[in-house]
Amino acid sequence: MSGRVVVQKYGGTSVGDAERIKHVAERIVARVQAGDRLVVVVSAMGETTDELIALAQQMTDEPEARELDLLLSTGEIVSSTLLAMALKHAGQPAVALSGAQAGIGTDRRYGRARILSVDPKRIRQELDTGRVVIVAGFQGITEEEDTTTLGRGGSDTTAVALAAGLGAERAEIYTDVEGIYNADPRLVPEAQKFSEVSYEEMLELASYGAKVMHPRAVELGAVQGVPIYVASSFSEAPGTLIHGGPFMEQRNKVLAIAQDTDVARITIRGVPDRPGIAAHLFEPLGESGISVDTIVQNASVERLTDLTFTVSRSELNRALDIVKPVALEIEAPSVLADTHLAKVSIVGAGMTSTAGYAGRMFRTLFEAGINIELITTSEIRITCLIDEKQVREAVRALHKAFELEEG
Amino acid sequence: MSGRVVVQKYGGTSVGDAERIKHVAERIVARVQAGDRLVVVVSAMGETTDELIALAQQMTDEPEARELDLLLSTGEIVSSTLLAMALKHAGQPAVALSGAQAGIGTDRRYGRARILSVDPKRIRQELDTGRVVIVAGFQGITEEEDTTTLGRGGSDTTAVALAAGLGAERAEIYTDVEGIYNADPRLVPEAQKFSEVSYEEMLELASYGAKVMHPRAVELGAVQGVPIYVASSFSEAPGTLIHGGPFMEQRNKVLAIAQDTDVARITIRGVPDRPGIAAHLFEPLGESGISVDTIVQNASVERLTDLTFTVSRSELNRALDIVKPVALEIEAPSVLADTHLAKVSIVGAGMTSTAGYAGRMFRTLFEAGINIELITTSEIRITCLIDEKQVREAVRALHKAFELEEG
Repeated sequence: MSGRVVVQKYGGTSVGDAERIKHVAERIVARVQAGDRLVVVVSAMGETTDELIALAQQMTDEPEARELDLLLSTGEIVSSTLLAMALKHAGQPAVALSGAQAGIGTDRRYGRARILSVDPKRIRQELDTGRVVIVAGFQGITEEEDTTTLGRGGSDTTAVALAAGLGAERAEIYTDVEGIYNADPRLVPEAQKFSEVSYEEMLELASYGAKVMHPRAVELGAVQGVPIYVASSFSEAPGTLIHGGPFMEQRNKVLAIAQDTDVARITIRGVPDRPGIAAHLFEPLGESGISVDTIVQNASVERLTDLTFTVSRSELNRALDIVKPVALEIEAPSVLADTHLAKVSIVGAGMTSTAGYAGRMFRTLFEAGINIELITTSEIRITCLIDEKQVREAVRALHKAFELEEG
Repeated sequence: MSGRVVVQKYGGTSVGDAERIKHVAERIVARVQAGDRLVVVVSAMGETTDELIALAQQMTDEPEARELDLLLSTGEIVSSTLLAMALKHAGQPAVALSGAQAGIGTDRRYGRARILSVDPKRIRQELDTGRVVIVAGFQGITEEEDTTTLGRGGSDTTAVALAAGLGAERAEIYTDVEGIYNADPRLVPEAQKFSEVSYEEMLELASYGAKVMHPRAVELGAVQGVPIYVASSFSEAPGTLIHGGPFMEQRNKVLAIAQDTDVARITIRGVPDRPGIAAHLFEPLGESGISVDTIVQNASVERLTDLTFTVSRSELNRALDIVKPVALEIEAPSVLADTHLAKVSIVGAGMTSTAGYAGRMFRTLFEAGINIELITTSEIRITCLIDEKQVREAVRALHKAFELEEG
């Protein structure tokens, strides 16, 4: 068998029922006939993962992480075996592999395991016999042979890791959108689809609300130099290639507008301004796997300061359970939380070398009557927290102000 | 941790929904508190296996055996993780293991794999930390790390194999009946429950219709010397202990009446009476995993004979697909099949040393107006094939004739 090796990934919606799985099988057969050798990573069918979690919650409020992972891993095994069967039915030899069989080695952080190693021996053997290899995404195995799941963005990460381990041409992520846009097309009808973006830009887009891909998988692609192609599994429209090409240096403008409504804000009032306090607060959050972003500390007044940060809404209660005792301990008088905010960001690799973007963003929001609650910036991004109700208005105004209608 | 090690097995009905799983967890906790160290094998919840098969059949009429096994293995993983969670919720440390993690090594005969080895290292480690070990039944793993399922009686066999591998006190099979009776209590209200039976007797009972346990697991128990206790998971009523104790020698009567309506009969007419013909016929059936019993060959007339055997009804079509070409090849003029028959057997260890049992059985059936279509015997069993419609009548008449009402 010759032909380049390509890793594809199909999400839960793409394999949501028997008909869709057969449709995916047809797409795979066409690619094999075109000469490619395919490794295909699949998510669990539709709502399977949520259904399994609901089952677990019938047993206990707090399912043990190890058992929950073993339970959840069955969802991707079901979809991968069904896809392999559909391929064989279509005359295409195929084999389904669990994460363990595919050689995905992880650490022991159940529910959010990190991939430590990829041993592609079995996959190569199967490819060499002419089979399409279907791999259950989102899962791996520890040295002790315990099953783990990778947490958010898990199947995308599986695909990129396998592409790296196999030296594949690229990882192709098939989903229910047609690629990466310069704004959410549901909010901005004039939004333009990119044919390519850099890892860094995609990372900012993904971190700041473009739900198409999890930043974790993009990061792995960047580190491993694996090009990632994002496209729709429901159409043949060209998608977006995420890679590290030289084109990005030449950009000198705002690339896209991103928004994220899954935001909860926590503010700790009256934090003593002395060394080690921040570590004392954020280390336990990190150990619990709570992803914190947008940390802002105001200037200190009389050696007391306010510390604000955001987490996803689903993690707000867990975060508060950790933060409140620490706040007591450091004698901070109060902890505030709210969930009515959203993030709106402008993203672009060229922004650091050009003045005026921040100013134009703030003026645009001001002219649209939108109050800014918090501002943070990175080298290639400026983010404002605003009222959730004004997101659509803000994104449209910014899309227009930065002349993104022309792509 | 001291205390004897006991292996329990709960069937699909016993773990059919969340409430039942919690009930099983309570039973386990009570046993642990009584001082036992438990390894618990579970089947898939209720109809799970059938639902997974239905999913596979939406993909293809003939799912590949390897992928089907990987798919079906998820059913027992789901139930085992849920039971472990229920136990932890009840304050009892527990761990769920897949067949692979539990060290169940099998051959590569997908769908009907045989256990080749049990490596109880992981189970022992978990027991030593005070955990109850829940094992996904019905499954194992090949040397090549492919998942297999064990086929009929798979979870019972897992339990007995683990009991043997661990040197456990005994295997306890919990099901929806209260033990082994001397006739089907649904047909014979006066049926008596045994407190104990020998492996050999149970084997005959199981092979000839007592659906409580699969003969395969009984056989393994006999070979490995593992006592098997069969009881209800829904009550505290005492069950039946299957073992190899000396009591069996002293029996000198009919032990029980068994019936089996899952019978299809195949007759090959005009088979040439020469060496090798039987092997030619039955070898391919064996290779396909079709379980054949009750083979009868009539006396040869002009070097031609009729060969009759029975299979289960679900395997009739597959058996015919194999038999018909062979019949053509050996120039047998016709192959007949019917599915209106049932088996009624009398079973008892003492029957060989005492004359008259066969005669009394045939007379009883004759007096009840029941025609006998075929007779076979073993050392401790006499079986008649009769019309399925007359089974209830036959079982009742025999139960009375052999004075089984008194137990």
